[in-house]
Amino acid sequence: MKPEVTIVKIGGALIDAPPKLQAVLKDFARLPGRKILVHGGGSKATTLGKRLGIPAEMHRGRRITSAATLELVVQVYAGLINKQIVAGLQAQSCQALGVSGADANLILAIRRPVQSVDYGFVGDVVEVQKEHLNALMDMGFVPVFCAITHDGQGQLLNTNADTIAAEIAIAMAGSYDVTLLYCFDRKGVMRDVNDADSVVERLDKESYMKWSKAGVIHEGMLPKLDNCFNALENGVRRVKIGLPEDLLTRGEGGKGTLVVL
Amino acid sequence: MKPEVTIVKIGGALIDAPPKLQAVLKDFARLPGRKILVHGGGSKATTLGKRLGIPAEMHRGRRITSAATLELVVQVYAGLINKQIVAGLQAQSCQALGVSGADANLILAIRRPVQSVDYGFVGDVVEVQKEHLNALMDMGFVPVFCAITHDGQGQLLNTNADTIAAEIAIAMAGSYDVTLLYCFDRKGVMRDVNDADSVVERLDKESYMKWSKAGVIHEGMLPKLDNCFNALENGVRRVKIGLPEDLLTRGEGGKGTLVVL
Repeated sequence: MKPEVTIVKIGGALIDAPPKLQAVLKDFARLPGRKILVHGGGSKATTLGKRLGIPAEMHRGRRITSAATLELVVQVYAGLINKQIVAGLQAQSCQALGVSGADANLILAIRRPVQSVDYGFVGDVVEVQKEHLNALMDMGFVPVFCAITHDGQGQLLNTNADTIAAEIAIAMAGSYDVTLLYCFDRKGVMRDVNDADSVVERLDKESYMKWSKAGVIHEGMLPKLDNCFNALENGVRRVKIGLPEDLLTRGEGGKGTLVVL
Repeated sequence: MKPEVTIVKIGGALIDAPPKLQAVLKDFARLPGRKILVHGGGSKATTLGKRLGIPAEMHRGRRITSAATLELVVQVYAGLINKQIVAGLQAQSCQALGVSGADANLILAIRRPVQSVDYGFVGDVVEVQKEHLNALMDMGFVPVFCAITHDGQGQLLNTNADTIAAEIAIAMAGSYDVTLLYCFDRKGVMRDVNDADSVVERLDKESYMKWSKAGVIHEGMLPKLDNCFNALENGVRRVKIGLPEDLLTRGEGGKGTLVVL
């Protein structure tokens, strides 16, 4: 039997509210066994960018990363948010070690080729250095990833945090029984975004394809769900989406959306 | 015989100029054996603070760290500068791993008690977690420290980078033969700041006490030299101050100021 590892992604609204973040970190710190945390950026980069006169350019929900924006997100993601999370986990006796993809060459990426859109300094993951990641966990450290990668030539790159979580999960799947938990500010995938009780308990790929075509699933959820199915198709055992208090404290049962092939 | 480790501090003007920084990183990457890099902040935090309307308050050459300033320096030191250095070293095939004192609980500090001056969120080092630092080096990683620490209760703290380098050197001295190199933008300690050729080749404590009383040594050098003597008095074998190109490439001989007891 393979050892288990839990990979937890937290993002957006969870990071913006300090009391909410503290509660999430407390639950994460108590998760048994090997674990990895991946965090998004929240709204801090956008508000800081506004104060500095750096406009937030988006294309289909993805940030276009100019040189000024890259500097901004490296500061906020790898600096402020990553270290606040690490210090918060350390206060919970969790041996957190904050990293970007450049550290220990953990995530090598390539700048996204320009096609119809130039995303700027955005990186697509090429390889997760699983030996280094494993070695850090062997020593008892809990890796905390921000969504910054590098190209191995000295260039930092901005990478989607959901994708980073999925790629780490896939890289670990060869030697671990991997659970991937996407925590966000809703109860799960919903049939009706206006009805909090319309959570889909179990979402298989066929229903996903059908519902996404029919426009039932909210557009912002599509890249996240693509990452979920990509992970499952590449050896990850279990993928769930939902509120952190539901996913981190209730084990196998509990609420949220279980994504299955 | 103890194994050797070299601890290199780089600061200020070396960080502000990208071509200069690249040259330093190239030399550092080629240093043989175990090594640790500690970097200061350069002027970036000050210029960014100006753009954001956060004033830089100083007291005797030390920054007073308000909550807004702490956020700023965590972003710039732990985020931007640390990750740019790590990516730059990775491009030189140096297996750099960027850390703050919060990561892996590497440097525990205490908020400086308020006496005549309230320095704000400034941390005085309590303990360097040498077991964790050793474990990272055992794995072949090269730790790259920014000058941010934590108090173990979730609070990040701003700590002087020269002091961090000295404290790491002292913590390592029990099990290593430690060389501590303070690289900056001058050839060494100078008898006359206006005469670049007045470098003191060898500075012992007696001369230091005498010259500092007489005002021969520039005021800004005093805390740095206090760190040097503190390191030597606590088991560090060799301490030098000077230009990075002199200290990193010339081994035992070479230029710069050798500090001795």
